[in-house]
Amino acid sequence: MSQQREKVAIIGGGSFGTAVAKIIGQNVLLHDDIFEPEVLLRMTDSTYNGEKLIEIFNRTHENPKYQPGITLPSNIIATSDLEETVKDATILVFVLPHQFLEDTCYKMKQFLKEGTKAISLVKGVNLNQEGPVLLSTTIVDILGIDVSVLMGANIASEIAKDQFSEATIGYTNEDNANLFVTLFHTPKFMCTPINDVPGVELCGALKNVIAIAAGFSDGLGLPGNSKAAILRIGLLEMKKFAQHFFPEVKTDTFFESCGIADLYVTCTEGRNRKCAEAFAKTGKSFKELEAEMLNGQLLQGTGTTEEVYKVLDNMNMTKEFPLMSAVHDIAFEGKPVTELVSSLEVN
Amino acid sequence: MSQQREKVAIIGGGSFGTAVAKIIGQNVLLHDDIFEPEVLLRMTDSTYNGEKLIEIFNRTHENPKYQPGITLPSNIIATSDLEETVKDATILVFVLPHQFLEDTCYKMKQFLKEGTKAISLVKGVNLNQEGPVLLSTTIVDILGIDVSVLMGANIASEIAKDQFSEATIGYTNEDNANLFVTLFHTPKFMCTPINDVPGVELCGALKNVIAIAAGFSDGLGLPGNSKAAILRIGLLEMKKFAQHFFPEVKTDTFFESCGIADLYVTCTEGRNRKCAEAFAKTGKSFKELEAEMLNGQLLQGTGTTEEVYKVLDNMNMTKEFPLMSAVHDIAFEGKPVTELVSSLEVN
Repeated sequence: MSQQREKVAIIGGGSFGTAVAKIIGQNVLLHDDIFEPEVLLRMTDSTYNGEKLIEIFNRTHENPKYQPGITLPSNIIATSDLEETVKDATILVFVLPHQFLEDTCYKMKQFLKEGTKAISLVKGVNLNQEGPVLLSTTIVDILGIDVSVLMGANIASEIAKDQFSEATIGYTNEDNANLFVTLFHTPKFMCTPINDVPGVELCGALKNVIAIAAGFSDGLGLPGNSKAAILRIGLLEMKKFAQHFFPEVKTDTFFESCGIADLYVTCTEGRNRKCAEAFAKTGKSFKELEAEMLNGQLLQGTGTTEEVYKVLDNMNMTKEFPLMSAVHDIAFEGKPVTELVSSLEVN
Repeated sequence: MSQQREKVAIIGGGSFGTAVAKIIGQNVLLHDDIFEPEVLLRMTDSTYNGEKLIEIFNRTHENPKYQPGITLPSNIIATSDLEETVKDATILVFVLPHQFLEDTCYKMKQFLKEGTKAISLVKGVNLNQEGPVLLSTTIVDILGIDVSVLMGANIASEIAKDQFSEATIGYTNEDNANLFVTLFHTPKFMCTPINDVPGVELCGALKNVIAIAAGFSDGLGLPGNSKAAILRIGLLEMKKFAQHFFPEVKTDTFFESCGIADLYVTCTEGRNRKCAEAFAKTGKSFKELEAEMLNGQLLQGTGTTEEVYKVLDNMNMTKEFPLMSAVHDIAFEGKPVTELVSSLEVN
């Protein structure tokens, strides 16, 4: 065997991190000419029923906190030690919450091996004065390495149960894209590469704004035609936003799993839709509903809504994005949720 | 007022015909500089509770058989007389079932006024030896007039109740398209024109094949990721089929209401989805389920599935359309419905 095999490290052991760790653990063994068998999974220290979660995981190969009942291959080893996770890795898989990404990158920078590449499964968007900044760009800027992204119609619990799913890999470097397809693809998790990092990544972030509109629609009891119109107008606003700030974004990307498929599943399931439905029905704030309904998990869509609105407002473009603007005004400015549809009407 | 006002006739008074007659009746009065106020609605003779439906309609302005509880404007006049309907019309709105279209066109041909144009809301597809023939082309071939099409996420009962909906108008002649937008558009029925008759029309026909796959998925209890993948693969097969036989079909058309929005609503509501779910759960044939579940209405998706499969099979292209082929084989060839997903998997 060659000494040049790729060594994979996974940064983040929540529900999605645990689900993809299962796939990665199987695929590195299947392709042992390409990958080292041992994969480190970096989790933060936490306890479950009084025992350290990392110890439970390494003893039982299960993550009862985030994917109860799912057994992972024993070549996935959990650790909280960032240096240990990163120092020998040639492939980094980022699958941690948006708010921890930047800090984690700064902390790992000193341990990084030369030639390492990364793939980000993190959903969200940053801002600077000129507009949106991709999270993959944040990683590139801090670590100076090639970064692909993976997004798609990926409810984590379904992937953990080997239910048929698809995903999209957005890439810049084609060799790395092929490597990531080998690492992630299975007949039950079908991965398609596309040379479009910003398109794929913005789909993953922006769909959560549309999911809030879908939740409002469900809370108002709107019928199918109306919800279909909201999803469609939402997809077009996602595309317009992405192509305005990143003119290289491909229209074809929106036909991939990260586009229409993820939008569909996020607008029919998913916590952003669910909390927005409750918002429309109860009048409680998103902060209250997040605390009541999500058992410690955080909403991604509300933060993204605020970031996107700031960008649009700065550029006097809110009128060109009536759906995203209405979601913002309903969620944060006291606009009645009953005005969702009238915001979209044209005489 | 000018003598050149357009005179509208509607051919077909079923559930969708009655719903659009309500919109048309309002819009011709609103735009009385463009349209004659009286609109004839051609229905076939039938009875309801022992009375002629046409007489009930003209007395009460309701169609209790197909849109109970909905009152239409009194300028919509029902008749069964095709000559009377057609002879003064300058705009024909075709909204009758596919199977009656050709015969009705032949019967009306002799009464047609010069310069008449048409818009077809009929869903389906014909076949000849070279491949699919659009229903709008059938009208053009028989009547020799310009034909636009209107398709979209349009559950008829929701439109009749003025619930927010969108629709797409596919056109060849831009002046006629503008006229049809004026005739159909309201703030609650938002119409977008696009210069793409085959794209818009094939979306309306082919989505019913994908709706059968969605129903199988629901009947099997597949989770969200899987159904999202089925819808996405379905939309790509619709696009591939349309652009193979009509290379001028625009990718943008699939982002219009006739594309993703109609696919969404047809795959979450709609009779094709419903019967296919029952097929997967009960093992009964579509013929039996149609008789049991649809109260005299007909399934469009099964016929379209057979037509599409014939085309693909003739051209040795079934492998390039794994989802549509699987729907055919499950519906008509005894392939187990449990093999729906494995038909889509790629190693």
